[in-house]
Amino acid sequence: MLYIIGLGLGDEKDITVKDLEAVKKCEKVYIEAYTSLLSFGLSSDGLSKLENLYGRSITLADREMVEEKADQILSEARESEIAFLVVGDPFGATTHTDLVVRAKKMGVEVKVIHNASVMNAIGICGLQLYRYGETVSIPFFTENWRPDSFYDKIQSNRALGLHTLCLLDIRVKEPTLESLCRGRKLYEPPKFMTINTAIEQLLEVEQNRGGSAYNEETTSVGIARLGSEDQIIVAGSMGQLLTVDFGAPLHCLVIAGNTHPLEEEMLEFYALKGENPEGKYNKTSSNGAL
Amino acid sequence: MLYIIGLGLGDEKDITVKDLEAVKKCEKVYIEAYTSLLSFGLSSDGLSKLENLYGRSITLADREMVEEKADQILSEARESEIAFLVVGDPFGATTHTDLVVRAKKMGVEVKVIHNASVMNAIGICGLQLYRYGETVSIPFFTENWRPDSFYDKIQSNRALGLHTLCLLDIRVKEPTLESLCRGRKLYEPPKFMTINTAIEQLLEVEQNRGGSAYNEETTSVGIARLGSEDQIIVAGSMGQLLTVDFGAPLHCLVIAGNTHPLEEEMLEFYALKGENPEGKYNKTSSNGAL
Repeated sequence: MLYIIGLGLGDEKDITVKDLEAVKKCEKVYIEAYTSLLSFGLSSDGLSKLENLYGRSITLADREMVEEKADQILSEARESEIAFLVVGDPFGATTHTDLVVRAKKMGVEVKVIHNASVMNAIGICGLQLYRYGETVSIPFFTENWRPDSFYDKIQSNRALGLHTLCLLDIRVKEPTLESLCRGRKLYEPPKFMTINTAIEQLLEVEQNRGGSAYNEETTSVGIARLGSEDQIIVAGSMGQLLTVDFGAPLHCLVIAGNTHPLEEEMLEFYALKGENPEGKYNKTSSNGAL
Repeated sequence: MLYIIGLGLGDEKDITVKDLEAVKKCEKVYIEAYTSLLSFGLSSDGLSKLENLYGRSITLADREMVEEKADQILSEARESEIAFLVVGDPFGATTHTDLVVRAKKMGVEVKVIHNASVMNAIGICGLQLYRYGETVSIPFFTENWRPDSFYDKIQSNRALGLHTLCLLDIRVKEPTLESLCRGRKLYEPPKFMTINTAIEQLLEVEQNRGGSAYNEETTSVGIARLGSEDQIIVAGSMGQLLTVDFGAPLHCLVIAGNTHPLEEEMLEFYALKGENPEGKYNKTSSNGAL
């Protein structure tokens, strides 16, 4: 049996009581480390915190392991109970769907245990979940690679009056160009897109495409470390959000569509106080309180 | 402090370890009972199970209480730590946003703790979450009231190749017509829309509107009791799903847009076996295993 278990967004205690029971009886516990590692504080002492709470030693499964050694994990799961821990919800990322499909093909039983993910926790920003259109991903632009397919999707959403959740690029364990040439594995340092970079790229694409999908005045909400104790939520125009320092990753951005009065009241609470001379903004207090 | 705590979808053990700690130290614990009561088994011994696990007596807050007595709950929260438990995630329903807005206005600190909701757990059906368009609600049709605004939304989603999550009507504690006339409070029995009724209504609207948004052949996925031990997921054409008995509530329905190969592989696992003479379908085993 392969348990694919969502850990939620905040920290090691966001595992459910049911999950914790499942993990404790598993023979072996893997944790996927590449979808949103840092959000979970696993860079420092996070892993040992997890091991202490769960009472199990945990194997870090990085991108290569999941892609190259999935069959090994699945073979183990055919013989015994194996847990595969995932930050957020198991179906936030395509990779886990792929793992389920492989498991099914090998005749391995799979049990999925859900938890919060950015796809529903984003509701905290005040824009109603059922008023979102298609989610987009904003990739890091490079000198020669500036893909902008997200633009058409945002334009469609906005034309329908819908909000758009923008997931921002994460680059973890990318091989360096040099290492690719030399055949040795060396990795770039991890890289997480900030809300500021995302807005700069969005505005650049609007300038090139000229489709009036959005502009510097468009109401947006920047969210950093969603679901964590120190999350920050700031609402304002794209131009205003450009001036905010949201701090450590992960960041995401919502571009508002048409808003209802209740949504506007919520956005007010998160609004950037433009008249504040120190440029301070509404942030959630420590403890993640609003 | 008002804690608004998501309980997840399955049962009392889907509360997170962190939530459980918060609930245990609260002075008073309310649970909202009207958004998706039955999904949580609270009809029978569910409430006492919760009370046993959480070590607290829990006040059931039905629709009237939340709407009429919100100020009382919020006053309590100004003086002490109060927990308001919600099935799913706190921001699945507009009511909870309203509660947050009221709390803010009264100067009450609010802390939201997320959990899984249908909005992300639906990923288990195999259709990728970031390929969904606007979510729609299908209300029960009556003789004189057959609102079909969901049709335009599904049509827009399908035109963009996007999937549509259809949330099906729940009627709990609706006053009877007779009781409204007599001024005494008597309630209709609770009523939950089945996938079958939803599809019948959808096809009726397509016939009236004639916009070719979908038809009996359109690939869809019916999901009953999502996230519970006995969840059922069946993929097939709308016409095929009409023949399936999905059992107890809650039900929801996904109308597929354009599908990718990985999505199709997942749908295969849930496909209705049309050639099966007994009309059996793929269902998840007990334990919620796939």
